Amino acid sequence: MCRWLAYWGTPVLLDTILYRPTHSLIDQSLHSKLGVETTNGDGFGVGWYSRDNDSPALLRDVGPAWNNRNLRELADHVRSSLFFAHIRASTGTAVQQSNCHPFRYGRWMFMHNGAIADFRLLRRDLTLLVDPKLYPHIEGTTDSEVMFYLALTFGLDEDPPAAVATMAGVVERVGHQHGVEFPLQMTIAVTDGERLWAFRYSSAHASRSLFYSSRVEALRRLHPDLGFLQEVSGETRLIVSEPLGDLPGAWNEVPESSYGVVQPGVDEMHRFEPVAA
Amino acid sequence: MCRWLAYWGTPVLLDTILYRPTHSLIDQSLHSKLGVETTNGDGFGVGWYSRDNDSPALLRDVGPAWNNRNLRELADHVRSSLFFAHIRASTGTAVQQSNCHPFRYGRWMFMHNGAIADFRLLRRDLTLLVDPKLYPHIEGTTDSEVMFYLALTFGLDEDPPAAVATMAGVVERVGHQHGVEFPLQMTIAVTDGERLWAFRYSSAHASRSLFYSSRVEALRRLHPDLGFLQEVSGETRLIVSEPLGDLPGAWNEVPESSYGVVQPGVDEMHRFEPVAA
Amino acid sequence: MCRWLAYWGTPVLLDTILYRPTHSLIDQSLHSKLGVETTNGDGFGVGWYSRDNDSPALLRDVGPAWNNRNLRELADHVRSSLFFAHIRASTGTAVQQSNCHPFRYGRWMFMHNGAIADFRLLRRDLTLLVDPKLYPHIEGTTDSEVMFYLALTFGLDEDPPAAVATMAGVVERVGHQHGVEFPLQMTIAVTDGERLWAFRYSSAHASRSLFYSSRVEALRRLHPDLGFLQEVSGETRLIVSEPLGDLPGAWNEVPESSYGVVQPGVDEMHRFEPVAA
Amino acid sequence: MCRWLAYWGTPVLLDTILYRPTHSLIDQSLHSKLGVETTNGDGFGVGWYSRDNDSPALLRDVGPAWNNRNLRELADHVRSSLFFAHIRASTGTAVQQSNCHPFRYGRWMFMHNGAIADFRLLRRDLTLLVDPKLYPHIEGTTDSEVMFYLALTFGLDEDPPAAVATMAGVVERVGHQHGVEFPLQMTIAVTDGERLWAFRYSSAHASRSLFYSSRVEALRRLHPDLGFLQEVSGETRLIVSEPLGDLPGAWNEVPESSYGVVQPGVDEMHRFEPVAA
Repeated sequence: MCRWLAYWGTPVLLDTILYRPTHSLIDQSLHSKLGVETTNGDGFGVGWYSRDNDSPALLRDVGPAWNNRNLRELADHVRSSLFFAHIRASTGTAVQQSNCHPFRYGRWMFMHNGAIADFRLLRRDLTLLVDPKLYPHIEGTTDSEVMFYLALTFGLDEDPPAAVATMAGVVERVGHQHGVEFPLQMTIAVTDGERLWAFRYSSAHASRSLFYSSRVEALRRLHPDLGFLQEVSGETRLIVSEPLGDLPGAWNEVPESSYGVVQPGVDEMHRFEPVAA
Repeated sequence: MCRWLAYWGTPVLLDTILYRPTHSLIDQSLHSKLGVETTNGDGFGVGWYSRDNDSPALLRDVGPAWNNRNLRELADHVRSSLFFAHIRASTGTAVQQSNCHPFRYGRWMFMHNGAIADFRLLRRDLTLLVDPKLYPHIEGTTDSEVMFYLALTFGLDEDPPAAVATMAGVVERVGHQHGVEFPLQMTIAVTDGERLWAFRYSSAHASRSLFYSSRVEALRRLHPDLGFLQEVSGETRLIVSEPLGDLPGAWNEVPESSYGVVQPGVDEMHRFEPVAA
Repeated sequence: MCRWLAYWGTPVLLDTILYRPTHSLIDQSLHSKLGVETTNGDGFGVGWYSRDNDSPALLRDVGPAWNNRNLRELADHVRSSLFFAHIRASTGTAVQQSNCHPFRYGRWMFMHNGAIADFRLLRRDLTLLVDPKLYPHIEGTTDSEVMFYLALTFGLDEDPPAAVATMAGVVERVGHQHGVEFPLQMTIAVTDGERLWAFRYSSAHASRSLFYSSRVEALRRLHPDLGFLQEVSGETRLIVSEPLGDLPGAWNEVPESSYGVVQPGVDEMHRFEPVAA
Repeated sequence: MCRWLAYWGTPVLLDTILYRPTHSLIDQSLHSKLGVETTNGDGFGVGWYSRDNDSPALLRDVGPAWNNRNLRELADHVRSSLFFAHIRASTGTAVQQSNCHPFRYGRWMFMHNGAIADFRLLRRDLTLLVDPKLYPHIEGTTDSEVMFYLALTFGLDEDPPAAVATMAGVVERVGHQHGVEFPLQMTIAVTDGERLWAFRYSSAHASRSLFYSSRVEALRRLHPDLGFLQEVSGETRLIVSEPLGDLPGAWNEVPESSYGVVQPGVDEMHRFEPVAA
């Protein structure tokens, strides 16, 4: 299992979000409170969009986030309006850069907390369902990357919620074919550089935690003394595996079997259900 | 492309073979003479058999061999009668530990110099031909590892030359199906911890270089002053991508489309031909 | 702070001691119970003596021990009668191989848990006291390595307890000169490949935990069913930062301000006091 | 020895300079033409200034530049008007992040090609001459970093050419005291984020190569077809260990025992002489 964070809104230094808050994601790499594992030291990744490239940049490495100096440097110098960060606790697959989240394909970026149960058993069948044209782009050996390529196969580019629902349906179908009762456990973030989708689902309906930040204007009323809140736009939003900081009223749980859309204008929250495929 | 070395014979410190000779394999990681690339700095691996385990030990890392301190340490302290060493120049796949040779399955160890042409194109079809029971053991993304698992699929455990010939035939068939004229380029070493097989073959019959050391008794007559030759058994044998040292009479080219067997008693050399499968 | 383990006795596979016990040192890298930090993921090291070399071999790396595959390989294949293992939680200095314990000089090996308080302040003065002939051998930037080179400077080769006592006295004197009230916190293991010395001391007399294993014959009486105890000699001894396993009667605390000697024949325990120097 | 590159001028994507040119610095990490070593694979570093921080950002790693994916990512997404890049061929000191150039202190950045002869012999005396207040900031073990801290000690902040000249004088004096005939070999780049100084000097007056790019307006006349030259300001300047690309008229050798200043307005070139100190 892992921990992750997705930021959408006013451009900020990565440091503001990654390191500054009490119980920041970087702290969580050493001491997660809500994770299945307390330590998430099997690699990390940050992905961000810049003005010069439609495709996001990735900084990923195999050591722990808490002692990585390149990440610390980047956080002090890179500003972005849309970025993902992920810290990994391997559920068995190799600790290597190609297994670190986020994953990227063109302008798309994807990260995952959770697991496909008995993935060693299901891996071949699931990988076969990836579009042969996409197959050569798979670089690592995680369940998460296969989930991403399945979503791409099933139309992520056109309809992200439908593509993720089909992917989830396929994972469950293949899992059940192999006798796995609860094949899927996932919280997922995916973005095309414009909008951000976050999913919370598990076959057993006992999904890993996922939270979204309250509306900035509400937080400003609650915490008029916090300068940071004055600087970011009203639309700024964070989605996290577990809350950062200790601001009362700041965090709301994404309901079980749901997904949210962060976008210009009004955000959305919908029910999520795998599509039998 | 890469460089490799296989040792079979009297137990020696790895240092004796890996670092001591002029133009040693470690030197070749910086300055190969016969390789397609002069630098082989994209990871390395050493595999050796010890008394405590039927399965060989692997030390592999993603940096260059020439500056790796753990390899230097091991070479000064580990003694083995059968070991492989490999230095990698990536032909495109990721530089990660799971892509470093040698590869291992149970008591079997395998390494490769060469490439499957257009592997990105052929990868999916070839991987599908791996026995589904073996499939979950594939950890990396190289053509070499897929070749190993295909050989295992086709009976490496029973008849290594036949299994490698079938693997080569399958690679050529799948390659031709995708319009690749010369799909395979390989020098391969494979061992079960008892015997050692070395193959030299390429679809275009223009294979990478491969050499085997002369019989120790002949070398002793040629070089009576060399202490090392007095210490090793008459059966000791080295197979290398390019000659170590500068001993006249020490090295013989493995003929094009051939394989050799190093074993207790008399070694063998045979013609190698892919089996259409 | 860190965790460490020193083994002296019948040759065993490293695996037997490093991975097999419940709450093994490798487990402690993720979940230490008695350490100041629960996670010790800032590098690790193993040092062992082999037959081919008076000087011990070191395998050290900057990632966590718990997911290191080369350590796992070595543990399954290397057998030694005297080895050290160390997992690191950096107290601020860089996470790099040259800062990983154990340290080595000739046949000597050294490792440390603890810290010199305000080391940044004291580093220059302490480093100056290292014998200029030894100075070029300092490779890293830790307080621990400076402590080792001070001990070498003060006669480790002739009288280890006296050399360590002088080192401790010097650290305290230089610390006091800089206004540091309690300059030293240490548990140390040091060996010349024959005998093993373990020290527990801190300026505030509140030293980190240190334990030694009970006499094997006593353990055999308590646990006649444990095969492992039948296989090792009566003189086999383990010194650890925190107990491995859950064997009643197996572990004894090294008293505050003491040092023990593990050696052929009868082991010793003495009071330790820094020598004003 | 090493290779380096310094860029000052119109903000560009790092990619434009680091990867795009024929015989780029990244190519030189594999195949340097003018370097003492053809391979510079013992770590690398990039340092750049951004708008959010007076102090430059550093991305440094211990593997070769040619296969580093994080560097590749950064180069596609980071734009800067002043950056350094360095590829390392170790002359003996450890391959670790803290030994990778550029080095940084506050807003200052420094990199070096060359060596202090017999540095192991001179290291202690030279390190002692570093201001004790700066001493704790030394993180690695290279001669280069000590040169940087000596320059800082001797007033880099006030008068960079004088500080570097005093540093060079001190290195020569201490070298001579130890019987080293030609103690210093250096090409150096140093910047405070505004101006850039580049030095070429060696005690034997046989310094490593160093080149500066021609004035942009002259290049535009010579190569009117090159779009890149239309986009950068007339003041844009590159200093490199060996020429990139194959543009006739593009490169000029920095004369032996000289230094140049790249700055707003007219650049300067002066004679360099160590100051006896």
